[in-house]
Amino acid sequence: MTPLSPTTRSTINRGKNRAVLDRAELYAVLDAGLICHLAFVVDGAPVVIPTGYGREGDTLYLHGSTGAGSLRVAAGGAQICVNVTLLDGIVYGRSVFHNSANYRSAVIHGRAETITDPEAKLHGLRVLTEHLAPGSWDYARAPSPKEFAATALLTLDLGEAAVKIRSGPPVDDDADVAADERWAGVLPVSRAWAAPESCPLLDGRHAVPPHVAGRATLG
Amino acid sequence: MTPLSPTTRSTINRGKNRAVLDRAELYAVLDAGLICHLAFVVDGAPVVIPTGYGREGDTLYLHGSTGAGSLRVAAGGAQICVNVTLLDGIVYGRSVFHNSANYRSAVIHGRAETITDPEAKLHGLRVLTEHLAPGSWDYARAPSPKEFAATALLTLDLGEAAVKIRSGPPVDDDADVAADERWAGVLPVSRAWAAPESCPLLDGRHAVPPHVAGRATLG
Repeated sequence: MTPLSPTTRSTINRGKNRAVLDRAELYAVLDAGLICHLAFVVDGAPVVIPTGYGREGDTLYLHGSTGAGSLRVAAGGAQICVNVTLLDGIVYGRSVFHNSANYRSAVIHGRAETITDPEAKLHGLRVLTEHLAPGSWDYARAPSPKEFAATALLTLDLGEAAVKIRSGPPVDDDADVAADERWAGVLPVSRAWAAPESCPLLDGRHAVPPHVAGRATLG
Repeated sequence: MTPLSPTTRSTINRGKNRAVLDRAELYAVLDAGLICHLAFVVDGAPVVIPTGYGREGDTLYLHGSTGAGSLRVAAGGAQICVNVTLLDGIVYGRSVFHNSANYRSAVIHGRAETITDPEAKLHGLRVLTEHLAPGSWDYARAPSPKEFAATALLTLDLGEAAVKIRSGPPVDDDADVAADERWAGVLPVSRAWAAPESCPLLDGRHAVPPHVAGRATLG
């Protein structure tokens, strides 16, 4: 596994101590996230929207309706940028200046490629589906030819990526620590699953399947 | 309160049924989020990073180090785009095609303005601080002149914004609903606070203050 080799734009300048060059960390952030933020340029202006994704090796999969403007831009070979951020805590410093957040964030730069080969596309859609809803691909009905055609699948290579992680207590000024005039620390925040809500159109004979019921234990 | 009046780029084309034109919903999404994703253009390519924000009326506040590249781009009057998304659930359809997510998402387009007036800047920093860490501004040490100068404060007007919300059960094909061959539904996901972690450099005489200890009850 090659380490992350930053290009100029993927080199972290602010908070260098928070930059991580281990490719395994990139995978870990991407695998832990649920949705990503996809940025592209339209008429010279940036646009950023949330969307689903999946990762396999050094390939990030993105998808969407073939009619979506965002997908058309990305599928046209334009440069895109994807960010996946997990917020882990609010950092309360002794000074408001040192208030911060604990987080894991991955940024990927590149150009998307449209996958048209049917077998490769079906595989990519499986990776995507299994990322947001593990266990769904084999459980739910497979895409019909019409649904398959209505979905665009893009790939983004993870070659140009950066990871930034902040963790731990506040980093306060020595004078503030020595003065010890107030509390400081971290309030952790994480993702929590609640009880599954069955579709009201079900007739009641299908129990919540294990891949959904057991997800809370998967994180 | 004026409704959201979409421009061409802030008009939602895909999933029109999920577009919301009530300005109060925009405020609600922005107030419920913790961090935003800020997109800007560098050398023709998009970049998207997570960052803190705060809202007051129709003004979104952004800030950062005066040395940060992202802030320099945004502060230079270039077009930016901000997205705040709250993921509310994973939607498990009867078909993988109808797998989806429940979410609330706000997108704002515009050009940032740099706030230099000291009083206005101090006020904006308070709004920002109070968004991510309510109660901190009055509790923690105020910015020193040096800290104040090292922080850039930007505003983005909420005039050009769009809100998209998906909620409720899966929307499956009639044939799949009628066949009733498998479970479908929603697995809700939300934010969860854990017990505050006091800074190890504290001497133990400061209890966790109510604005931190009580946050779990604030959502």
